[in-house]
Amino acid sequence: MTAFAALAAFQRETEALALVMGRLGWDRETVMPRGAAAQRAEEVAALEAVLHARRTDPRMADWLAAAVAPDAAGEAALRHLRRDHARAVRIPARLAAETARVTSLAQGIWAEARARDDIAHFLPVLAQVLRLKREAAAALADGGDLYDALLEEYEPGMTGAALAAMFCRMRPRLVALRAAILGTGRVPPPLAGRFPQDGQLRLAREVAAAFGYDFHRGRLDLAVHPFSSGSGADVRITTRVDEADPLGCLLATIHETGHAAYEQSVDPAHALTPLGHGASMGVHESQSRLYENQIGRSRPFAGWLHGAMGRAFGHAGAADADALYAALNRVVPGYIRTEADEVHYNLHIMLRFDLERDLVAGRLEPADLEEAWNARFLADFGVAVDRPAHGMLQDVHWALGLFGYFPTYALGNVYAGCLWAALRADIPETDALIARGELGPITRWLGEKVQRHGRLFGPGETIARACGGAEPTEAPLLDHLEAKFGALYAL
Amino acid sequence: MTAFAALAAFQRETEALALVMGRLGWDRETVMPRGAAAQRAEEVAALEAVLHARRTDPRMADWLAAAVAPDAAGEAALRHLRRDHARAVRIPARLAAETARVTSLAQGIWAEARARDDIAHFLPVLAQVLRLKREAAAALADGGDLYDALLEEYEPGMTGAALAAMFCRMRPRLVALRAAILGTGRVPPPLAGRFPQDGQLRLAREVAAAFGYDFHRGRLDLAVHPFSSGSGADVRITTRVDEADPLGCLLATIHETGHAAYEQSVDPAHALTPLGHGASMGVHESQSRLYENQIGRSRPFAGWLHGAMGRAFGHAGAADADALYAALNRVVPGYIRTEADEVHYNLHIMLRFDLERDLVAGRLEPADLEEAWNARFLADFGVAVDRPAHGMLQDVHWALGLFGYFPTYALGNVYAGCLWAALRADIPETDALIARGELGPITRWLGEKVQRHGRLFGPGETIARACGGAEPTEAPLLDHLEAKFGALYAL
Repeated sequence: MTAFAALAAFQRETEALALVMGRLGWDRETVMPRGAAAQRAEEVAALEAVLHARRTDPRMADWLAAAVAPDAAGEAALRHLRRDHARAVRIPARLAAETARVTSLAQGIWAEARARDDIAHFLPVLAQVLRLKREAAAALADGGDLYDALLEEYEPGMTGAALAAMFCRMRPRLVALRAAILGTGRVPPPLAGRFPQDGQLRLAREVAAAFGYDFHRGRLDLAVHPFSSGSGADVRITTRVDEADPLGCLLATIHETGHAAYEQSVDPAHALTPLGHGASMGVHESQSRLYENQIGRSRPFAGWLHGAMGRAFGHAGAADADALYAALNRVVPGYIRTEADEVHYNLHIMLRFDLERDLVAGRLEPADLEEAWNARFLADFGVAVDRPAHGMLQDVHWALGLFGYFPTYALGNVYAGCLWAALRADIPETDALIARGELGPITRWLGEKVQRHGRLFGPGETIARACGGAEPTEAPLLDHLEAKFGALYAL
Repeated sequence: MTAFAALAAFQRETEALALVMGRLGWDRETVMPRGAAAQRAEEVAALEAVLHARRTDPRMADWLAAAVAPDAAGEAALRHLRRDHARAVRIPARLAAETARVTSLAQGIWAEARARDDIAHFLPVLAQVLRLKREAAAALADGGDLYDALLEEYEPGMTGAALAAMFCRMRPRLVALRAAILGTGRVPPPLAGRFPQDGQLRLAREVAAAFGYDFHRGRLDLAVHPFSSGSGADVRITTRVDEADPLGCLLATIHETGHAAYEQSVDPAHALTPLGHGASMGVHESQSRLYENQIGRSRPFAGWLHGAMGRAFGHAGAADADALYAALNRVVPGYIRTEADEVHYNLHIMLRFDLERDLVAGRLEPADLEEAWNARFLADFGVAVDRPAHGMLQDVHWALGLFGYFPTYALGNVYAGCLWAALRADIPETDALIARGELGPITRWLGEKVQRHGRLFGPGETIARACGGAEPTEAPLLDHLEAKFGALYAL
């Protein structure tokens, strides 16, 4: 057996075990009994120790040194494995296991803290997670930037400095757009009436299927925080329901369907290899955000949705499709990132990006986070945070140790802007298709241009290839937002 | 660190990984998307390979040779580990992984075959599973009896010959009792009316809680085949619902509650050690069968249940508690083991025991199984099997490779007979407690006498200690059945 074949066989088992780990995460956040948290933490730590031992197995170094790839996919797989191995061997086994154990516990503590608005309950474990992630960052950075070392996990090749520069270019146009919209004093009314949970979940399933989600290889459940989990033949999504506002459930479902359809659409030949996942978190978000915003919050989709909601609830909560379109695009300085309109969304990200860079750099302590969050929110959104669940306790990410993850959401918006422009140029009848709920040609374009490649290309290259070779920039997104909201609010 | 401490730390991780494997089984049979079966088989095989590598790790042999237990629990743990290690090293890693992969696939194929009454669809994978288990048995038996080598996995110390002798003693009294009952020509009517699924599941949860099941550390779901899964802080049960017959759901729930309450009641000090589970499958079944039969099918419980069903459904499907008691104890030569009355149940087991001994010995081929099953069923039950789902396709066990498992059900009945006699002697007010639905003193007696010890003692010793030192025999069970059904059918 060649070194490449031995490596591939070993890696296939590692990938399968990583899928098991993902399944434990899904279980914990959907069906796990509450009393099982401590025992589950031990299970996760044991499995993480196995994964870490495999990723740092001495044979890996030998195989990686000797392996010769038989084709381009093999070369890409080797690139990923060499990079991942170089990172893994820098993390001591003790640190990997402790991080898995502590973040598993922290997730439950965060959920309790959020439910009770109790920051003091969350701070000790947040400090513990941050300490572990700073230790990991120091080991990975090898004298370089701590934040970049963590960001590399989610968006290979990206740096905090590049993101800061891009956000700096985006900010003035977003702030100006926001000011112009709020200056009109117009706030479209939200939907009226009740939308029972059963109907919302039925509609969510119908919409997910319309967006190409394959329920034969997935399922939809309720969870505190909507997420997508898994790869290949088992990709599950979750959503949440507010009976007064069906758009939250619906848009969360569409968003997670974007993630899940991406994982389901990767070429089966890449399954259980390093290429069998999305190219990066940013490219992943480009799919989920494009599904959610460019399609889900568009006027043509509002036309189709108005009919679907009428069938699901006996009423759509809005007089007509125009009113539903307006309700889908209410621009208000709200507290919650996941409920934010397209104009404010990136401002939520910039807030988190700056705070977590400070946390990782040691310029900000967890004990001072609430004050820093609330001051920044007041400055950016013109509103004081009314309760911690609407402020620093709203997101699970830091409890899970995902420092460096937030900016990939904004990067996803930027990538989505590029893809949307390219897609509309290739499919001139896009609006008419959406208006009829025929999303097949659109999701197939994304499948062909982006999703099927998995991690065959780097993140930026994946987007550039889909866009005819043009390097991704923030311009198409900002042009789109100014045009859309300019028309909607008659600016 | 002493050899014992090193061994204990290593074993703790192995136990945690084994819990993860159990969780994958629960997932597959309750929530897994159908299209995920092939990928899941790879996941299970990878995890099984990890478990097998740990159980046969060269350090295990060194630790086991050098370890000195600090106390009686440590000595018992070492006994289990030495036995398990001696067995594990006899199974090649390739065989362990292939068995995990094939049985994972076989379970799905069995479910399809059962749904379509399609034996031909099941036979190839059954033959594959049998071949793998015979190979394992030959490796384990080392020249001894193949069936005993498999039985040892579920009931340490028991032999096929001892079981055959016991069944030989039981058979005439059961056959005579059955003949006497059927000879009366009396068949109590089943319950009348509809029992909606929601109400059945609510009642099932109420009853499980009354039997001491802790939902904080567990949950109840629907599945094709009722089962209990997990240990310690995460023990989940499943049931199934037939809206025409609520007793199936109810008795299955009570049965699985017996298994689950056992796992939940093991001394937490034994958690994640070799002692942190039930003593054997037979002892496990003694709890589930005692909960189901000696309590759940008793006249006092029928009195309580009649009221509870009235609250749950607006009617109990029977005129009074006596009629419900009769419906709970209809003696009919039915096809399905899990729905069998107490008189026929052990005849179902004897059929499977004889057939699987022949399969393992190579005296019977899978291709001839249907004919053998149907001939034996006709002889024992006086009824011809009408469809494969009512015959050899009804149980999942052989698909999962669980040859040697079935007789532990009958052994559990025998153990339950012993425990019930001892419990009633210790708690004279047993009937009055059950009639009021106050099961706490009874389940606490079982918790104290049996469940909390986990695997501290061997199976026979566990039962004997609970029964004041008397060796378990089949006599109390048969006495109980003859008295109960003699009165009920006025024999």
